[in-house]
Amino acid sequence: MRIDIWSDVVCPWCSIGKKRLDRALADFEHADDVEVVYHSYQLDPAAPSEPTERARDMLARKYRMSEAQAAQAQDRVTALAAEEGMYWRHDETWHVSTVDAHRLLHLALAEAGPQVQSQLKEALWQAHFGEARNVADPVVLTELAVGVGLDADRVAVVLGSDEFADAVEADIRRAAALGATGVPFFVVDEKYGISGAQPVELFAQALERAWSERSPLQMVTPGAAGDADGADGACGPDGCAI
Amino acid sequence: MRIDIWSDVVCPWCSIGKKRLDRALADFEHADDVEVVYHSYQLDPAAPSEPTERARDMLARKYRMSEAQAAQAQDRVTALAAEEGMYWRHDETWHVSTVDAHRLLHLALAEAGPQVQSQLKEALWQAHFGEARNVADPVVLTELAVGVGLDADRVAVVLGSDEFADAVEADIRRAAALGATGVPFFVVDEKYGISGAQPVELFAQALERAWSERSPLQMVTPGAAGDADGADGACGPDGCAI
Repeated sequence: MRIDIWSDVVCPWCSIGKKRLDRALADFEHADDVEVVYHSYQLDPAAPSEPTERARDMLARKYRMSEAQAAQAQDRVTALAAEEGMYWRHDETWHVSTVDAHRLLHLALAEAGPQVQSQLKEALWQAHFGEARNVADPVVLTELAVGVGLDADRVAVVLGSDEFADAVEADIRRAAALGATGVPFFVVDEKYGISGAQPVELFAQALERAWSERSPLQMVTPGAAGDADGADGACGPDGCAI
Repeated sequence: MRIDIWSDVVCPWCSIGKKRLDRALADFEHADDVEVVYHSYQLDPAAPSEPTERARDMLARKYRMSEAQAAQAQDRVTALAAEEGMYWRHDETWHVSTVDAHRLLHLALAEAGPQVQSQLKEALWQAHFGEARNVADPVVLTELAVGVGLDADRVAVVLGSDEFADAVEADIRRAAALGATGVPFFVVDEKYGISGAQPVELFAQALERAWSERSPLQMVTPGAAGDADGADGACGPDGCAI
């Protein structure tokens, strides 16, 4: 079974939502048969690559809140993160571009698989929310990517080019095609969609439902009339049917 | 809609089967919405990387046929390939390893997408069957990979390492898990399986059936009782629901 997750590195609900999904998976009998794949989503494609503004100040400016209101909004989410065992320096986080982080998440998926990609995503969330590091900084990104086992030379090549930029854009278009208007957006087995950091019970329910509805592959075979035109031609370890 | 194809570069029925699928797709109304992804399968994982034996001689040796019988078997398939517009030098093809070709097909998929991967697969089949070139030769592989637009430096790195070898193995295990005992093996929308180079009509029927049974994403949402624990927390272009 497969779970596709659209999320952003600077999206607090995405990190909290993933922890809730993890709790549902911890109690799910078939968790070993579940593959999680992350897809890119950029909350603010126009965010700068230099850390010029704290996320809190951007919030206040963009939504015309007072500094106290922006702080209150962030603190409420920080408290929910703490319920999931994460201790955030939310007030110090930077408002920065995540496109390079997403390109490295594609590199991780392509060359090391979904488990390493998940590790990199968690490392990015921890760097941004837990340590208020600049996740647009190539030095920080390289440290995190190499830390989960990616090849330093490949990371340098990707960061020095626009490799995987198309894949980031394609992910964002696919999210829109699926009807996602925000993140996190979870798709279980290409069948059930879950929008937002829903309660653990809702994730558990979707996992059980999707699992129970799994069907084995149905083979399509020629009718009894057969076919003279090379039907059933196949090759196997014992040669080709000729 | 998605079609997953397990196949090998040296598998004649795989190339013929793909041409038949292409003909079904040419008449399929929703062909533009179909993505084709190739997966690795090795008919003979023990085949040598040096071209020491023609496929025809290997056939005769392995199945204790006379040279004339092996030639007759190959010629029958060559005639069916010609019906699909392909002119093969089947008698001159080499019995060689395809693991490096499969690793490059994974590189193409990961870094350039399914369309470029399909182009590389066709180029490999043409090189092996149409021109009797050695598709285990790094020079030949590089020429074909660069010919479809892959980066020469990346191709050199992949060929000089065991990058994507795990992905090749994972594909072969997944084929076994799906019940495939030979190739080509087609899976339409993770639902319908087709084994072998079946007639065009059978592919057409599977495409229509899978398309008619497509269902839009079903959203799973909390019940009317709601939830106080941060349900529905999501971030979008207009900020985070807090």
